Amino acid sequence: MDAPTEQQQPAQLSSGNDREAFRQTLWNTLLRRSFYLPSFKIYGGVSGFYDYGPPGFALKNNILKFWREHFVYEEHMLEIECPSVTPEAVLKASGHVEKFTDLMVKDEKTGTCFRADHLLRDYCNDKLEKDHLTISAEQASELKNVLALLEDLSCQELGMKIKEYGITAPHTKNPLSDPYPFNLMFQTSIGPSGQSPGYMRPETAQGIFVNFRDLYYYNGKKLPFAAAQVGQAFRNEISPRQGPLRVREFTLAEIEHFVDPENKSHPKFSNVAELEFLMFPREAQLSGQSAKKICLGEAVAQGTINNETLGYFIGRVYLFLTKIGIDKNRLRFRQHLANEMAHYAADCWDAEIETSYGWIECVGIADRSAYDLQAHSEKSGVALVAEEKFAEPKEVEQLVITPVKKDLGIAFKGDHKKVVESLEAMNEQEAMAMKATLESKGEVEFYACTLGKNVTIKKNMVSISKERTKVHQRVFTPSVIEPSFGIGRIMYCLSEHSFSTRPGKAGDEQLGLLSFSPLVAPMKCMVFPLVQNQQFEEGAKVISESLTSIRISHKIDMTGTSIGKRYARSDELGVPFAITVDSDTSVTIRERDSKDQVRVSLKEAASVLSSVAEGKMTWQDVWASFPHHNCF
Amino acid sequence: MDAPTEQQQPAQLSSGNDREAFRQTLWNTLLRRSFYLPSFKIYGGVSGFYDYGPPGFALKNNILKFWREHFVYEEHMLEIECPSVTPEAVLKASGHVEKFTDLMVKDEKTGTCFRADHLLRDYCNDKLEKDHLTISAEQASELKNVLALLEDLSCQELGMKIKEYGITAPHTKNPLSDPYPFNLMFQTSIGPSGQSPGYMRPETAQGIFVNFRDLYYYNGKKLPFAAAQVGQAFRNEISPRQGPLRVREFTLAEIEHFVDPENKSHPKFSNVAELEFLMFPREAQLSGQSAKKICLGEAVAQGTINNETLGYFIGRVYLFLTKIGIDKNRLRFRQHLANEMAHYAADCWDAEIETSYGWIECVGIADRSAYDLQAHSEKSGVALVAEEKFAEPKEVEQLVITPVKKDLGIAFKGDHKKVVESLEAMNEQEAMAMKATLESKGEVEFYACTLGKNVTIKKNMVSISKERTKVHQRVFTPSVIEPSFGIGRIMYCLSEHSFSTRPGKAGDEQLGLLSFSPLVAPMKCMVFPLVQNQQFEEGAKVISESLTSIRISHKIDMTGTSIGKRYARSDELGVPFAITVDSDTSVTIRERDSKDQVRVSLKEAASVLSSVAEGKMTWQDVWASFPHHNCF
Repeated sequence: MDAPTEQQQPAQLSSGNDREAFRQTLWNTLLRRSFYLPSFKIYGGVSGFYDYGPPGFALKNNILKFWREHFVYEEHMLEIECPSVTPEAVLKASGHVEKFTDLMVKDEKTGTCFRADHLLRDYCNDKLEKDHLTISAEQASELKNVLALLEDLSCQELGMKIKEYGITAPHTKNPLSDPYPFNLMFQTSIGPSGQSPGYMRPETAQGIFVNFRDLYYYNGKKLPFAAAQVGQAFRNEISPRQGPLRVREFTLAEIEHFVDPENKSHPKFSNVAELEFLMFPREAQLSGQSAKKICLGEAVAQGTINNETLGYFIGRVYLFLTKIGIDKNRLRFRQHLANEMAHYAADCWDAEIETSYGWIECVGIADRSAYDLQAHSEKSGVALVAEEKFAEPKEVEQLVITPVKKDLGIAFKGDHKKVVESLEAMNEQEAMAMKATLESKGEVEFYACTLGKNVTIKKNMVSISKERTKVHQRVFTPSVIEPSFGIGRIMYCLSEHSFSTRPGKAGDEQLGLLSFSPLVAPMKCMVFPLVQNQQFEEGAKVISESLTSIRISHKIDMTGTSIGKRYARSDELGVPFAITVDSDTSVTIRERDSKDQVRVSLKEAASVLSSVAEGKMTWQDVWASFPHHNCF
Repeated sequence: MDAPTEQQQPAQLSSGNDREAFRQTLWNTLLRRSFYLPSFKIYGGVSGFYDYGPPGFALKNNILKFWREHFVYEEHMLEIECPSVTPEAVLKASGHVEKFTDLMVKDEKTGTCFRADHLLRDYCNDKLEKDHLTISAEQASELKNVLALLEDLSCQELGMKIKEYGITAPHTKNPLSDPYPFNLMFQTSIGPSGQSPGYMRPETAQGIFVNFRDLYYYNGKKLPFAAAQVGQAFRNEISPRQGPLRVREFTLAEIEHFVDPENKSHPKFSNVAELEFLMFPREAQLSGQSAKKICLGEAVAQGTINNETLGYFIGRVYLFLTKIGIDKNRLRFRQHLANEMAHYAADCWDAEIETSYGWIECVGIADRSAYDLQAHSEKSGVALVAEEKFAEPKEVEQLVITPVKKDLGIAFKGDHKKVVESLEAMNEQEAMAMKATLESKGEVEFYACTLGKNVTIKKNMVSISKERTKVHQRVFTPSVIEPSFGIGRIMYCLSEHSFSTRPGKAGDEQLGLLSFSPLVAPMKCMVFPLVQNQQFEEGAKVISESLTSIRISHKIDMTGTSIGKRYARSDELGVPFAITVDSDTSVTIRERDSKDQVRVSLKEAASVLSSVAEGKMTWQDVWASFPHHNCF
């Protein structure tokens, strides 16, 4: 085979200018080849929306197909599908109505909106970059400090910084309003009355949580089990940037794995325990180290990763991403810092992929504890719990608090019911302390939370004891481990990792190359007649029909364009193989990355292609089995 | 094999009560087995929304997978994906902002909303059914007439009928408002400014139309070609009924086949020309006949179906629906009546499927002419056209109108530019008539449309001639043939056609049976250990792993439920095969519809199952090749 041709690899790009140029070349290729089409382009477009054109859709669909195989089918997950339109009650319970916001400022004259944190970040970065000779060391250090704390600043603090630095609206330089929270959900109204507010879901997970009970029953009341959902999610971004990485509508693929909080082991953990890859634990981030290779089994054993099930999914995500073609040296698993993580989460890791935009969060893998199910239980009044039936009834000690209603009634009159409630609401520690005091002193000062004040409880008013009883089952709220995949982001990052350029034949131009693996490539193969000629075109049609019948995706290109240009187009589309019909009886098969060609009989062409495209043969095998053909 | 067991077939249900009972039995089964889950159930649900539970999602996904194979891959269609959120400009051009409405009335006291036509229909039906003894023949005939014309009534006419009949709000009997149009699109706002109205798309087609130019270029500027899109569509129904048939969010699969309006032949029409199936042409409907079997080739030849391409897709839709399991005797293609069809449509046929709800429209196949592309060309200012390059330049006669500006200026002063415009806007007939009159009389009265009045044009003011020129290409707006599939409706109708009941073993109960073909069944197979026993459970796991590795969808059921109950559950889930592990070395494979069982070695089980599930072997072959096993 040919020696590898020199390729411009993005991993080697160090300067910002190089990254910018690389990104622009890739983006031009992706647009020219219709991977992406700016949505509603003929009407001027709307920022934050992209269509997937034919090769983009095929690439995305292949990623999703493999995602289903790798996760849903492999683990027998319960895949469901819920509407995008969601009534307010669900999103109030999940916290999105109250908290799914970004802080926004408005240009006070034009009304144009900006994300407050972005303006502050841009200001600090600009100042540090352009004015680094004129600002003092203290000023520089203050700006760096602001950048580090950016995500933690409150609304008021952000507003004060914007005022202090005199930041104005970009372009117009008009004054800005104070920051205020803007809810990122697209709002709508369900039905004609105008009385039922609804939102386009910001994630697919809630649809799984509200169905927990039915899914648990469907699974024969057995834990653990996982449910999955793939679908559109919506975020009405204030001012979308970063092209296809920050859009207003996108495809999420989410898994909710429900597990007993007292047993987060995973029977298949040993399958992934020996994997070693880049991890970036909390401590490494705080002490200024960088990500390093860690063995997954050790990370779980040492408690760096909270539990086996979380570790199992981190391993499976690593395998998924690298199998579709993400460069393992530009993929890291970063643990959330304490201040990033929701208060209820037990642990959370992001799969981050390095691109020309920096490290991009593409998959979040979180142990969300029992938070979501508990929130929906409370708000809906429907218990979302699991049961563990004991093989033998268990004897347990239970706290029994018996308020003596008669005596309480005499002492507290109309308030006595509230005092009863407060007494019954005591936890074990409080109750046992009261019991001790009552026994030693005969009375106790007690804060009755339902009354909002202290009352004096006497010995005759309540009896507190511990009793042994038999219980037959344990009822508990399952914990949920959630791997959540941004499919569009993964797809774009994969394009960056797959893209390179190489010199054309004439040497005076660089040609684009998307080295997608056959697993995800938009098509497995292009079929060309060498020239426009009835014989060759007939041969191409015969091969195309054979490929269709064995379901090998391909495209037949009958245009009269030169074969070199057609190969160049095929390379830009990321198609791994091309069959060129140049005789009655035989064809050439060309492999994209090496540009090597073999000669195969017309009859065998479809089956050879299918073997190599579906991984039953390697290209090396093909190369060894068939005569080589001189390159064009 | 066993003689077919007696089954209660829905096709034989004649009375309304039978249909109602059949539907209820099916619906209970579909809910019990989690095919559907009422969305947001724990919050009381929202009408018009259903989730697909695990088997429902799998069934739907298999239908879509086969849809892609049968249409997209087979015809090399360009599949794309556009956002659901759509800016107003697109839906103004398409006419949805103005016309996508239903007429609504409100309960004047409670504000509850109703579809005006539904109330009137219910009133007429009720009256005809319940009061048929007390109303006169004239009254009955008038009510029937209203029912027949229901869809054609204007807003005012509907209001007058509601007043005339004294129809009040259901339940409350309160007076109703006058009817008024309610737009069925879910409205939202794009971005934070509140200045960019958007809607959730009511169909996926518009995303294809606005991308026509890019898709045409992607296809090498060749016609015909088809683009396809699968995705969610949204209709904010006033008061959804008919369970899963009329919902507010649903999956559409749409194809837009672009074709030269001067050549609507189809190269593969002969593949479908000999198909014969139930058609219900316009004339048959108007003359009170019923649908009858017609040969597709003849229907096109006789002009019943407008053109070959439309006919080709009708044939392909017929094949698609019958291959997934729709009963061909309860499927008809009904042509739209002139008053149902949009003014621009050349022809339109609905694939209707008979169910307990009556005939349900599931696929629309329309020749929409050039309407959509022209509408978007006009509103966006971007030409959405195709070109036909001539092999040889063609000599054509072209009309040349040359206003003599100097003389027109003298005659009309400040108005002369408008007169020039009006002269240039004449069509060939008008211009040649003017030329003749000018030659015979020297002057002519001319209505200048841009001035809105008549002017006198003299011979010296304009020269009109026909000149022969060479043209190299023809530029035209393609016609579009649109097959549009309501996937959720097809799925529900398929459930009706697949459902029956049969007596259980004890004979005192009817067990449900969903006879889905392996092509679309939620799973190909269930795997059971006969009893809870480590040996059998190990065997079941081994088989499950083999099935997973060859990607045969299945479910392993380790619950200790009796084998009879597990078969019953499997039958209700529509799973075609069950493997029961009842020994160390061999298993039984049971076929759902016949309940027949064969004995196969444990080692062979997965590969035999895969052959029969993927159609490489029939069950008859399996039955003939392996020893039979006594039924439980």
